[in-house]
Amino acid sequence: MKRTLAAEVPGRTGDRVLLKGWVHAIRPLGGIGFLVVRDRSGQAQVVLEGQDEFLRALPEASAVVVRGVAAAEPRAPGGAEIRQAEVEVVAKAVPELPFEVNHPGLAAGLDTQLDHRVLSLRHPRQAAVFRVQAELVRGFREALRSRGFLEVHTPKLVATGTEGGAELFAVDYFGRRAYLAQSPQFYKQMLVGAGLERVFEVGPVYRAEDHDTSRHLNEYVSLDLEVGFLDGLADLMDLEEAVLEDMFAAVTSSAGDALRLWGAATPRVRGIPRIRLDEAAAILDRRHGHQIPEGNLDPEGERLLAAEMERDHGCELVFVTHYPASKRPVYAMPDPADPALTLSFDLLFRGLEVTTGGQRIHDGETLRRRLDGRGLDPEAFAPYLEAFQYGMPPHGGLAIGLERLTMKLLGLGNVREASLFPRDRGRLAP
Amino acid sequence: MKRTLAAEVPGRTGDRVLLKGWVHAIRPLGGIGFLVVRDRSGQAQVVLEGQDEFLRALPEASAVVVRGVAAAEPRAPGGAEIRQAEVEVVAKAVPELPFEVNHPGLAAGLDTQLDHRVLSLRHPRQAAVFRVQAELVRGFREALRSRGFLEVHTPKLVATGTEGGAELFAVDYFGRRAYLAQSPQFYKQMLVGAGLERVFEVGPVYRAEDHDTSRHLNEYVSLDLEVGFLDGLADLMDLEEAVLEDMFAAVTSSAGDALRLWGAATPRVRGIPRIRLDEAAAILDRRHGHQIPEGNLDPEGERLLAAEMERDHGCELVFVTHYPASKRPVYAMPDPADPALTLSFDLLFRGLEVTTGGQRIHDGETLRRRLDGRGLDPEAFAPYLEAFQYGMPPHGGLAIGLERLTMKLLGLGNVREASLFPRDRGRLAP
Repeated sequence: MKRTLAAEVPGRTGDRVLLKGWVHAIRPLGGIGFLVVRDRSGQAQVVLEGQDEFLRALPEASAVVVRGVAAAEPRAPGGAEIRQAEVEVVAKAVPELPFEVNHPGLAAGLDTQLDHRVLSLRHPRQAAVFRVQAELVRGFREALRSRGFLEVHTPKLVATGTEGGAELFAVDYFGRRAYLAQSPQFYKQMLVGAGLERVFEVGPVYRAEDHDTSRHLNEYVSLDLEVGFLDGLADLMDLEEAVLEDMFAAVTSSAGDALRLWGAATPRVRGIPRIRLDEAAAILDRRHGHQIPEGNLDPEGERLLAAEMERDHGCELVFVTHYPASKRPVYAMPDPADPALTLSFDLLFRGLEVTTGGQRIHDGETLRRRLDGRGLDPEAFAPYLEAFQYGMPPHGGLAIGLERLTMKLLGLGNVREASLFPRDRGRLAP
Repeated sequence: MKRTLAAEVPGRTGDRVLLKGWVHAIRPLGGIGFLVVRDRSGQAQVVLEGQDEFLRALPEASAVVVRGVAAAEPRAPGGAEIRQAEVEVVAKAVPELPFEVNHPGLAAGLDTQLDHRVLSLRHPRQAAVFRVQAELVRGFREALRSRGFLEVHTPKLVATGTEGGAELFAVDYFGRRAYLAQSPQFYKQMLVGAGLERVFEVGPVYRAEDHDTSRHLNEYVSLDLEVGFLDGLADLMDLEEAVLEDMFAAVTSSAGDALRLWGAATPRVRGIPRIRLDEAAAILDRRHGHQIPEGNLDPEGERLLAAEMERDHGCELVFVTHYPASKRPVYAMPDPADPALTLSFDLLFRGLEVTTGGQRIHDGETLRRRLDGRGLDPEAFAPYLEAFQYGMPPHGGLAIGLERLTMKLLGLGNVREASLFPRDRGRLAP
């Protein structure tokens, strides 16, 4: 018999059905009992008569196969249930679970949830995080593909860092020293110059940062894009608005129920306010007496600025632009009006940086001088610099942190909740 | 003025257009000259009058912006050209290129091409490889999403290997030893058991193999899937046929021109012959006197078997099934009819293994005993084994090597040609 998914049961009333899933809840009520079975589509109620003993002995979370007849029942979730049921236990769970996963909330701290991720994901709200995340990624890809971007895969094992500093994980590569890529930055620029012109990549990036905060992961998924023949910084921010709009639309249309489980709503993304860092600093100083560190927003500054922008513009996002060259990577394009600044931006979403982007230097000689000026040996960057010898057009790009975006969209308290198996200083398993 | 892509020029005849791209070819013909400009969409011919000096001084490969009028011209590629043109050089290339990229073939050896990937990708055939590859990946994702699979992202920094052996790259993780994941195998099984039920992942995997062959990469892209409540090995092979059919359809519909540049055709994927390894061995022995190594096909055996299957069944693909347990990973499900064999398969495409798959052991105790039997400490695998405590249904999955599939589809001679920036024992850059 063909399998029926839980969500399909209401459409099959009167039919014999075969359901496969996991025991979500058991209610032996004396004579008549109920079994709630969960599969990838949702839940279905199964009625069992005279099987209280079986129900009492059945551990929650076990995998079962149910054969029965679908019947309309207004009091059942979805308006239908399965009657005349036979239940086959295909894999019995242990009698005691570390925590319950069939209550509205999860009565386990974050570390416990993450230690037992295979169990906590059984909770519908936890699984919903990753259904939302998958739709964000799909929306990102489709938004870019429809705009002429090519998806690429670049190596994560690299010979040099891209952000020119420490914070690199070292790998023993056949006796040589390699590193885990901090970003696909150099490769995506090289591919623009190689004539692919518009590229994007979804892949892991690595930061050996010693931070232990609710906003940092040592391995995360970066949604990267780079675009050639760029007309300027405003174009790039326009592009991000359009891409985010498509991403949020993908979530709304295909994971709307997952959003609702978190009481979350997607933000308005057209007409995001754009404010220079120096203007932002002035506002924070004037209105809050808050001084930001030299050339960068601190977490408190990010939160305060977000609140101001929400009040002034009714927008939960804000582009902060024109960061000082001293605080940006070597490849950041200087602002022609003030070369101490760069044509760069961060995008804050509900008070957290979720994107970094900007225009890049496309003149190889300038880039070489700047590497040299930072004490970096241009020869170590020869494969990157070669791309600038064959006609590198004006270009720019950005990178969205997938877990951070998911976190802020759903209102999660910690970025680790938006990673299936997060990696931090202390966590290398599961 | 809004930019016009090269491929759009024939539809804009009579209009002023703005073209952006790279110099593909220059033909100063004395008085009237031609410039062929390439962008991400294709090529357009530009006519320049009385500018022979400019054309002679312009290095091929430079990035240019062209303003002119689109005009019908039956002799031009695409039936149109750009006249009354003004050309602005936005980034001049070096006067001498390491090799030409505007001839039908690429007169450079593979190593030279890969050393100068940013230039060799300018060749339309080289770029075409990655347009085909992107469509294969898109087809994979859409095939699975439409069948209820969720896309996931699992960490590549792990505490233990999955294939239980050497061939792991070691990483210094804050003073501890971590490894680069050989596959997302454990995680995808854990996520099936965690109730996500059907998952897939597209991501890098790492093999510290010392091989230096035309078929091996040390970092490659794996297209992984895992499916819960599996009905048996045949179901999994049926699924792969359906997925491959969708993948090849995506290529044909969206990158048909790229296929044609390689003279390539997609294979028939429905009704792929399925042959047990012992039967395959018998055929090779009987018909060719070829002895395969114990429990595995050697490259010559793969090629001979492919030729036999093509002759017998007219099919360029073949599933080889029932590999011995001793040659498969610890999690491979034993064949109930002969526990020395496993419910596993490899898929050969034009004589090369492009997929490994199979049903997995879903009983935790069995798995624990098998780990122990291989001299592996079950405690080291505790986070994986935990998933088997909460009702792990029968399940199985497979992994497709993206670069190998691309290679065989296009008839490339070396898997490195199907990787933008391949990693092998000697190659860590670009």
